[in-house]
Amino acid sequence: MTAHPRLSLNQATIRRASLAEALDVTAGAGLGAIGLWREPVAEAGLGRSAALLAASGLRMSSYCRGGFFTAVDGAERRRSLDDNLRAIDETAELAATGAAGSRAVLVLVVGGLPDGSRDLPGARDRVLGALETLAGPAAAAGVTLAVEALHPMYVSDRAVVSTLGQSLDLVSRLDPAVAGVVVDTFHVWWDPEVLTQIDRAGREGRIAAYQVSDWHTPLEADVLLSRHQPGDGVIDFGRLTRRVEAAGFTGDVEVEIFNDTIWGRAPRAVVRDTVTAFDDAVAPHLARRTEQP
Amino acid sequence: MTAHPRLSLNQATIRRASLAEALDVTAGAGLGAIGLWREPVAEAGLGRSAALLAASGLRMSSYCRGGFFTAVDGAERRRSLDDNLRAIDETAELAATGAAGSRAVLVLVVGGLPDGSRDLPGARDRVLGALETLAGPAAAAGVTLAVEALHPMYVSDRAVVSTLGQSLDLVSRLDPAVAGVVVDTFHVWWDPEVLTQIDRAGREGRIAAYQVSDWHTPLEADVLLSRHQPGDGVIDFGRLTRRVEAAGFTGDVEVEIFNDTIWGRAPRAVVRDTVTAFDDAVAPHLARRTEQP
Repeated sequence: MTAHPRLSLNQATIRRASLAEALDVTAGAGLGAIGLWREPVAEAGLGRSAALLAASGLRMSSYCRGGFFTAVDGAERRRSLDDNLRAIDETAELAATGAAGSRAVLVLVVGGLPDGSRDLPGARDRVLGALETLAGPAAAAGVTLAVEALHPMYVSDRAVVSTLGQSLDLVSRLDPAVAGVVVDTFHVWWDPEVLTQIDRAGREGRIAAYQVSDWHTPLEADVLLSRHQPGDGVIDFGRLTRRVEAAGFTGDVEVEIFNDTIWGRAPRAVVRDTVTAFDDAVAPHLARRTEQP
Repeated sequence: MTAHPRLSLNQATIRRASLAEALDVTAGAGLGAIGLWREPVAEAGLGRSAALLAASGLRMSSYCRGGFFTAVDGAERRRSLDDNLRAIDETAELAATGAAGSRAVLVLVVGGLPDGSRDLPGARDRVLGALETLAGPAAAAGVTLAVEALHPMYVSDRAVVSTLGQSLDLVSRLDPAVAGVVVDTFHVWWDPEVLTQIDRAGREGRIAAYQVSDWHTPLEADVLLSRHQPGDGVIDFGRLTRRVEAAGFTGDVEVEIFNDTIWGRAPRAVVRDTVTAFDDAVAPHLARRTEQP
């Protein structure tokens, strides 16, 4: 089977597969890249994960995920920062092991309101503080911290950063090599400012990752699991993808889906569907056929 | 029982009550105002509804709702506009019948993407076109059209207007007496721009209604029914309410809750809870105790 050369499978799309199986089905379907997750890497062990990635011949398009920076409590905050330091090291090691064109990009989901708190501005300030703390170690490791704006329906329990513009403001004082943003269609498609903020992200050199999945209603009972294959919902992938391309993004494009029905299917079949969905809904809008490091 | 003089019960909070019962329990709990809905008014008949409202001694703080302007099809679009013209007339008649301080404010939920469409900008353009069409009749009737930005999780099926800033942009070319916006805490609390957009709404004379309800997670399986009494969630009502007051809003403040558990309770008990919740979570942040027409 032939897959578009810039398609990357984010591992979350086949969440129940082990790392070895995920690499196997992704390479087997002809993809060139994969976005890895920390949990399956931890399960396999970092050294063995790096060896498996190298053997797969795949590029790593991003590593998911660090973040969860909003704790007020000092000890909890310290644990979060320590964990992110480990994630930075893992990102560097895996990106160095993946095929040429791998990107040392650590995706950050910044965290929601701490239990009992109603202080959104305070939580946002702590995210900024954490990024400033991590910028040095990230630079030293050659890793880009990629802040992901999540859909506003996740603001209280998952991410107090809700728009692309807000994520760009957040990283604005940091070096673009060290701090960028993720553009994820599911999270930002509704935003009346999305196109101008994509332009801005390009101008400011901040687009560290482009992730695609689709939106349709009614949402699943668990709104976290409401993502769909590109084309199965109402997002105009042409409008967004052409703009991301025009903004200068040249990397792999990840399909990242959280969906219990899709997770229940055989990983190999899911990857096959992903290749087709991407070909139909996203690929026609990509200006460049090959990934350019 | 004593209720804060600026508390208004939006009728949706006791959705299963008839108009007569809603007016009865609202006035009976000592409130001065109510936000009415079209469906129970239609059920009672407009003339009888006006008589009931007059007899209740209550102000009408707003009338819900018009809108749903996004149809592409000509006939469907015409039906929508005709229906909104009727809603404008109803708003004027009921506001004239309610106690002094009643406001002829028609709340508009603008509509989502038409079936099969992925064209968000097109849908937004049609909303603007509809507002321009309705502005003349609204002005003639002395009615303010109040565009409500809904939470972005409703963008595809309910409202392609998702932020306060966007709603202000939308009405910017129309006379503020004819076109304003609704500030609803549930819909806008997450927005990093919310405070500056509240300031702007005040400066531009656009705050036609202020509605409060709370957010907490996990969301209900039907995300439409995920609203809670002020204080039962994570919204900082002080931060938002003080800003709305500072922006010059002097009207009644509506508690509007869609929640199946609350709908299942006795309306009288719900109103009693609303009075208490409002006293605790919202009233301390109101600068003015009495509503000023």
